[in-house]
Amino acid sequence: MAVLHHHSFCPHSRFVRLAMGEIGLEPQTAERKPWERDTDFLLLNPSGTTPVFEENEIAIPGASVIAEYLDETRGLGVQGRRLLPADPAGRVEVRRLLDWFNGKFYDEVTAHLVTEKIYKRFTGGSPDAGAIRAARANMRYHLRYIGYLAATRDWLAGSEMTYADLAAAAHLSCADYLSDVPWEEDEMAKTWYARVKSRPAFRTLLADRVPGMMAPAHYADLDF
Amino acid sequence: MAVLHHHSFCPHSRFVRLAMGEIGLEPQTAERKPWERDTDFLLLNPSGTTPVFEENEIAIPGASVIAEYLDETRGLGVQGRRLLPADPAGRVEVRRLLDWFNGKFYDEVTAHLVTEKIYKRFTGGSPDAGAIRAARANMRYHLRYIGYLAATRDWLAGSEMTYADLAAAAHLSCADYLSDVPWEEDEMAKTWYARVKSRPAFRTLLADRVPGMMAPAHYADLDF
Repeated sequence: MAVLHHHSFCPHSRFVRLAMGEIGLEPQTAERKPWERDTDFLLLNPSGTTPVFEENEIAIPGASVIAEYLDETRGLGVQGRRLLPADPAGRVEVRRLLDWFNGKFYDEVTAHLVTEKIYKRFTGGSPDAGAIRAARANMRYHLRYIGYLAATRDWLAGSEMTYADLAAAAHLSCADYLSDVPWEEDEMAKTWYARVKSRPAFRTLLADRVPGMMAPAHYADLDF
Repeated sequence: MAVLHHHSFCPHSRFVRLAMGEIGLEPQTAERKPWERDTDFLLLNPSGTTPVFEENEIAIPGASVIAEYLDETRGLGVQGRRLLPADPAGRVEVRRLLDWFNGKFYDEVTAHLVTEKIYKRFTGGSPDAGAIRAARANMRYHLRYIGYLAATRDWLAGSEMTYADLAAAAHLSCADYLSDVPWEEDEMAKTWYARVKSRPAFRTLLADRVPGMMAPAHYADLDF
């Protein structure tokens, strides 16, 4: 029995849900609260972070480790999709962007937004306005970079949709729920995001809600 | 012509140098200053961070992307070494620890130590005593975790030396140069480190010096 331990608004969890949706993998899911330090969860993943994918008695922790595992065990994907290209240069570019979005974009933008605006509703403590301001400022240049990639290639890493698109879209979807993506500043980024958002794998993400917190009207609108 | 762009005391660069040493790869090297924003270097790697490996007109940025690239292009290694095991569970464990040391250990410990105590000698600005204190406190539990792994397995990720050992040792070597590893607190970690440190690939690392900054006597002593 395969289980994905995740949190609905953890961007790394969302990335893995998208990847699994694309290759047609439908594990059971277990919602975890990354801010709690459950002993049983720490046994699965000593760093205590989501997501963790459990399969065949292996606990696979973290977005990039799961992405490599899926590539190695599902290769061409159940539906013939290849989310990591076959050629060395293509693999380098997808992994570079995966690090960029799951690492740099997360550290500079989405970690602050999700922690301050969502997780703190559950942990208590008031949101750090300085952290949110910094995240919003950083968002602007990240959105420009996504727009630049989308303007020069069919998809962010090249001619096919890859893990890079899913990672960027996963992080943006969390920020978009919080109305923190200035879409009007980059038409290319917006058009690219509408394409990713309309994929079937995105549907369950767009249905998730934070109790007591409304999403903006365009959030789940596939045509923006 | 293959070139490794690195900095002598960037822990991620040290990890890649160790990995290349183990598989018998000897690229040209180019010293880069990660705190400068050279335009030509940003063209190689938009995030501006070391290391970057250039080969066959591909620029491969970052420790984990380089590690995957080396595994895919050198497979069993020039000298028959396999730094990433062949079985899925083994690969998961090595990648988990690679993320742990290059991500978590770096964020919590070595990034602070190297930035405050080494990079700031070149960039100006006085070292942040609070950041150094936090790094030293975090070092203690990371060292205990390394000692725990070394006590329960032959090498950190299992029965063979892997990327996990090289990553942990690369980060520790930077902190050790700064006298910031409390070796007396964990005998197992110390014994394991002495084994990694005595490998031929480690020699060039131990010869590097920060101008005007002495290493402690035990730093390059292979028997501690």
